Amino acid sequence: MASVVEFIHTATLLHDDVVDSASLRRGIASANTLWGNEASVLVGDFLFSKSFLLMVNVGSLDILRVLSDATTVIAEGEVMQLLCTGELDLTEERYIDVVRAKTAILMSAACESGAILGAVPQRQRQALADFGMDLGIAFQLMDDILDYVATEEEFGKSIGHDLEEGKITLPLIYTLRHCSDSERTLIAAVVEQDEMSLDDFRAVSGFVKKHGGIAYTIDAARFYINRCKSHLEQFAPSPVREALLSLSEYVVTRSK
Amino acid sequence: MASVVEFIHTATLLHDDVVDSASLRRGIASANTLWGNEASVLVGDFLFSKSFLLMVNVGSLDILRVLSDATTVIAEGEVMQLLCTGELDLTEERYIDVVRAKTAILMSAACESGAILGAVPQRQRQALADFGMDLGIAFQLMDDILDYVATEEEFGKSIGHDLEEGKITLPLIYTLRHCSDSERTLIAAVVEQDEMSLDDFRAVSGFVKKHGGIAYTIDAARFYINRCKSHLEQFAPSPVREALLSLSEYVVTRSK
Repeated sequence: MASVVEFIHTATLLHDDVVDSASLRRGIASANTLWGNEASVLVGDFLFSKSFLLMVNVGSLDILRVLSDATTVIAEGEVMQLLCTGELDLTEERYIDVVRAKTAILMSAACESGAILGAVPQRQRQALADFGMDLGIAFQLMDDILDYVATEEEFGKSIGHDLEEGKITLPLIYTLRHCSDSERTLIAAVVEQDEMSLDDFRAVSGFVKKHGGIAYTIDAARFYINRCKSHLEQFAPSPVREALLSLSEYVVTRSK
Repeated sequence: MASVVEFIHTATLLHDDVVDSASLRRGIASANTLWGNEASVLVGDFLFSKSFLLMVNVGSLDILRVLSDATTVIAEGEVMQLLCTGELDLTEERYIDVVRAKTAILMSAACESGAILGAVPQRQRQALADFGMDLGIAFQLMDDILDYVATEEEFGKSIGHDLEEGKITLPLIYTLRHCSDSERTLIAAVVEQDEMSLDDFRAVSGFVKKHGGIAYTIDAARFYINRCKSHLEQFAPSPVREALLSLSEYVVTRSK
């Protein structure tokens, strides 16, 4: 089942990079750059199909339902994200809905699959599904922050991408709620244009830091991680529970 | 299950049109032309996921295995087709393997799903799976012919596409085996270039007709349709068997 989840994740990354015309993935040339959009679309389809074939071999209709529901929601979430591109009035609530759909549901489904394989009672299964969902939201929020706060040598590599692509994430949503009209006009211009200079990025990330967008988003991520920890109270202390607690803490402390 | 198969088919068409940069589908603007590659990739993913969700609700692991195996083979078949583009030495055997993988396996899986739902004995299930496979091969061969023989008013609409995209299909494979060196050189030039003029198309389709590529391919399609009919002998006469026989005959007589 770990392979299944990894295959699904990789399939979505291959398709995402085509959809976003991304030239880099994890700091190196993306598959679409190296082998073209055609191969990326088709190999994504292959991994996706293969993941279902592997799941069928596990033989649990329950797991198949959880995972096929998750992949359907992910596809919807990607379309929602596409529709929200450049949408300066995106609300925090709607943004979290997109994050839940495009990112967190796969972590939730992964955790719930483990619960099904482990044949735990329903309340523990729900707790693990909720743990995965909240972990996924916190993970994405920290990812949103890292797009603004890495060192400038990372510009064009691991920072500034969301902004360049017109993706409105929580640090910017918060900033847009608190900035002046002239700052908003500049942000709108940067979001709309296709290419972004280092000066543009400095200006917008300056507003984000000044208005507290980073601090607000870290607090939000911590809120979801605290919920993660409370979901784990459904389980007796064990090395596995400790590992999941450490994972939660890692999500809000990682620096890359 | 009919909806499941239709969803999978539509998903593959959406992705195919992105991969082939096709501007038309069924004679009208393709989805990627109207709404962009992004939406086509993501909506294809959505339909694909949704089809698995619908299948899970049917509750048969047997059907899930047949269909997820089919979609995996389809993705492999599409990659094989991509690798065979412009390959003038493509053999008939290898071409039929590609057709089996990219087209016929879905018809086979559709027929086998019906057999599973109908709880027929294994030999009848196999007969229906084989019927679908041979029907699919014949269907694709007739499609290959139609790309060469429609009226010239259809040029740029429903004929000439395969050739323009460098797809080597059976009428051309047969022709390449029988044409002169100078004809082969001209065919190679047309296959290699990105754009194709009406004169280019006239020249190549002239060679195909002269050397009997069309007649040979019709004979091959009829061979597979005869096999279809013999598979149906596993079933007692009935209106349903009659319908499948008519469908087989339609595949080799349709003109569009």
